[in-house]
Amino acid sequence: MVTPSAADSPAELIISACTVLVHDDQERIGFAEDAAIVVRGGIVGAVTTAAEAADLPAAERIDARGQVALPGLINCHTHAPMVALRGLAEDLPTEEWFNDVVWPVESNLTPTDVELGARLACAEMIRAGVTCFADHYFAMDAVARVVEESGMRALLGEAFFSSQGPEGRERSLEFALRHRGAADGRITTALAPHAPYTVDDADLAATAELARTHGLPVHLHAAENRDQTETSLARHGGTPIEVLERTGILHTDLLLAHGTGIVDSDLPLLERSDGRTAVASAPRGYLKFAWPDTTPVRALGDIGVDVGLATDGPASNNSLDVWESMALTSLVQKSAEGDPRWLTSRQALHHATLQSARAVGLGDSAGGIAPGRRADIVLVDLTGPHTQPVHDLAATLVHSARSADVRTTIVDGRILMRDRELLTIDVPMVVRELVERLPALVDRSHGRRIQQYDT
Amino acid sequence: MVTPSAADSPAELIISACTVLVHDDQERIGFAEDAAIVVRGGIVGAVTTAAEAADLPAAERIDARGQVALPGLINCHTHAPMVALRGLAEDLPTEEWFNDVVWPVESNLTPTDVELGARLACAEMIRAGVTCFADHYFAMDAVARVVEESGMRALLGEAFFSSQGPEGRERSLEFALRHRGAADGRITTALAPHAPYTVDDADLAATAELARTHGLPVHLHAAENRDQTETSLARHGGTPIEVLERTGILHTDLLLAHGTGIVDSDLPLLERSDGRTAVASAPRGYLKFAWPDTTPVRALGDIGVDVGLATDGPASNNSLDVWESMALTSLVQKSAEGDPRWLTSRQALHHATLQSARAVGLGDSAGGIAPGRRADIVLVDLTGPHTQPVHDLAATLVHSARSADVRTTIVDGRILMRDRELLTIDVPMVVRELVERLPALVDRSHGRRIQQYDT
Repeated sequence: MVTPSAADSPAELIISACTVLVHDDQERIGFAEDAAIVVRGGIVGAVTTAAEAADLPAAERIDARGQVALPGLINCHTHAPMVALRGLAEDLPTEEWFNDVVWPVESNLTPTDVELGARLACAEMIRAGVTCFADHYFAMDAVARVVEESGMRALLGEAFFSSQGPEGRERSLEFALRHRGAADGRITTALAPHAPYTVDDADLAATAELARTHGLPVHLHAAENRDQTETSLARHGGTPIEVLERTGILHTDLLLAHGTGIVDSDLPLLERSDGRTAVASAPRGYLKFAWPDTTPVRALGDIGVDVGLATDGPASNNSLDVWESMALTSLVQKSAEGDPRWLTSRQALHHATLQSARAVGLGDSAGGIAPGRRADIVLVDLTGPHTQPVHDLAATLVHSARSADVRTTIVDGRILMRDRELLTIDVPMVVRELVERLPALVDRSHGRRIQQYDT
Repeated sequence: MVTPSAADSPAELIISACTVLVHDDQERIGFAEDAAIVVRGGIVGAVTTAAEAADLPAAERIDARGQVALPGLINCHTHAPMVALRGLAEDLPTEEWFNDVVWPVESNLTPTDVELGARLACAEMIRAGVTCFADHYFAMDAVARVVEESGMRALLGEAFFSSQGPEGRERSLEFALRHRGAADGRITTALAPHAPYTVDDADLAATAELARTHGLPVHLHAAENRDQTETSLARHGGTPIEVLERTGILHTDLLLAHGTGIVDSDLPLLERSDGRTAVASAPRGYLKFAWPDTTPVRALGDIGVDVGLATDGPASNNSLDVWESMALTSLVQKSAEGDPRWLTSRQALHHATLQSARAVGLGDSAGGIAPGRRADIVLVDLTGPHTQPVHDLAATLVHSARSADVRTTIVDGRILMRDRELLTIDVPMVVRELVERLPALVDRSHGRRIQQYDT
């Protein structure tokens, strides 16, 4: 507990009388009870006792009795605007999903579709307690506008394929440089090659060079599933991770989506990489596509690679519910390892907080409620019958609570949802405008697609 | 659509302007749009158009614009009062979970604990759109009282072990006969031997005989996991299903929980059984315990065995969220079969409705919204950002909607929750009373347990 000096100027926000998820200096999860959070300048000034906070002046107060304050959840890999396609490509193998539905439809995509999709997605995420998302998509200027106006935090990257020629990579760089630090610093950026199966080695090598020159991270899909790894071995004589290694991508600050096709021989490469390496795991989609593996969380943890939680795009996952990803990560990892003692609720909360923050490059500023970190906080109501009684608060949060139990979502000290009411997005209007555009968006009669999946 | 005669007496309830999940005569799922449900005498009188219903007199109306009416969900296997132990035994292998925590704690169990637990559980289920549950536990008189007062529907059985002597079986029979048809017919009953590993062959044979004599179904755990099947083969020279066959249990109307240890050689036995045979699948717990298999839903379907959805008890599953079981069944079955085309959203909804109703012996009266069936209906709000837009309503329901989207829950035409407000249970009072009792309930210093798990 850090006690604020009474002589400080009035806090902009005090959240009082709640239980606060905290990390100790070994990053172990704990819960401070009957606590209060003092926010100044968008930053956590102090985590103190409710009694101490009662006497402090504040511009705004939230009485959070019966609620738990968590660091806002982070969606470490998504394509948020794809909410527009949610439910359009169901029960298909990966290849048909891409080639027959998603990539044909995406050839119709306009910046307006992307903007409306992103706005609806941000509404969904704010309601689900997500305060930050790593987005990898097209027409990302539109997503940046929505991040600015909605108040969320995001790591944004303009996706590209080598089929676009060098212009794809150049646009991705131009986007990353232009938006870096935008929205009062809430926007950070990455270079966003699509994947080693759609971006060739020369393009990957050039991207790695740009990343080093400009100090930008790289966010891409790689070793998404076992098929991709096997095809890469046959075509390129190496696994996707080996391709990233030899093109230099592995030595940038790398956010790698999925990695269910990572094999044992990849692990030493990942361990020896020069940059910060993290993997985003979105287990729901792996089950839905019936991929044979899931992200090897235990093996990655053993070599010090952070695993952040993600939903992937809602056209495959059907939702942006990171809370569900947290629970599923625990369940699926226990099952995959055959070990019920593994991936406990506290481990799941560690993935959801500090590991996810590091994965998106915010290891020093997000993922925790502690003095000096950004005030990205969600308040969770545990008074519902499904979350009572509480024998083990970590288990209650991971396995009994649901995203709908989030009552209040705060980013940089600004309240984006209060008592379930969204304050920055008008959902009915967004839905109305988006639904009008759907017939043109989902038309596949033209026979075009933006890319071919043939790994 | 069946159009009610205008000369009918006033309906007790009309739910208007909604989309209604309906089944055709091949049990295929469809959606009637801009429809209305007319309820008379606790029964669906008609599913008609919103326009027709507008002119009908009714004692009560619900304007359900933007909502979808589904048959109430059915929890086909649970131990509802175990909400009291939710989160108490985390991250343990099955054997330690039973022997070190749950069975020692259950030696402290009083009817008051059971009653408070059941009341909290019913609150959770009503809020999650569950209208009926199959409960298998102890001190079931207390559960019956709660079913009566809460307005829910239930299939109740008093659990017994052979270690209790013949009195266990006799109490189970006495309970089943005394409560059958109680609560205006909302309570049905079953004989409830615990499992073939805790109830010996003679006791199972006597139970089968009682079931035949009294026309009662049997609800038990069997072939819960692969270990149990292997142990049964070693100790009894047969799989658990073979034990049920030779003791006659398989030829009763049987509700079998879990069955993840069912092997290929069991399938012909299950197919040839004389009675109605159904399996309840609760996939969350199988993942959490890291069991190597899940319920073989496809193989069971191929031989005509219904698979109902379940949560198991909240001490293992941490929740009574059947909605989550529906989504997880789809995801886990796709993964287990390696087939993304399998267990579509419509198939999941079929398991959730007609198959679950048949599993609990209510195949003619529940599980569907159609004239003559009981008016067990839930209204789901799809206006949230996470359920928009809707390209495929079945997918939206299974993969995007959550239990918290249920706004209204109706059993036998009586509204148990309206606009998220519970009308028959006072949750804060139940939680207060239950929490006071927890220290005595969870005390394990006595060293007793009600049973030993050693399969």
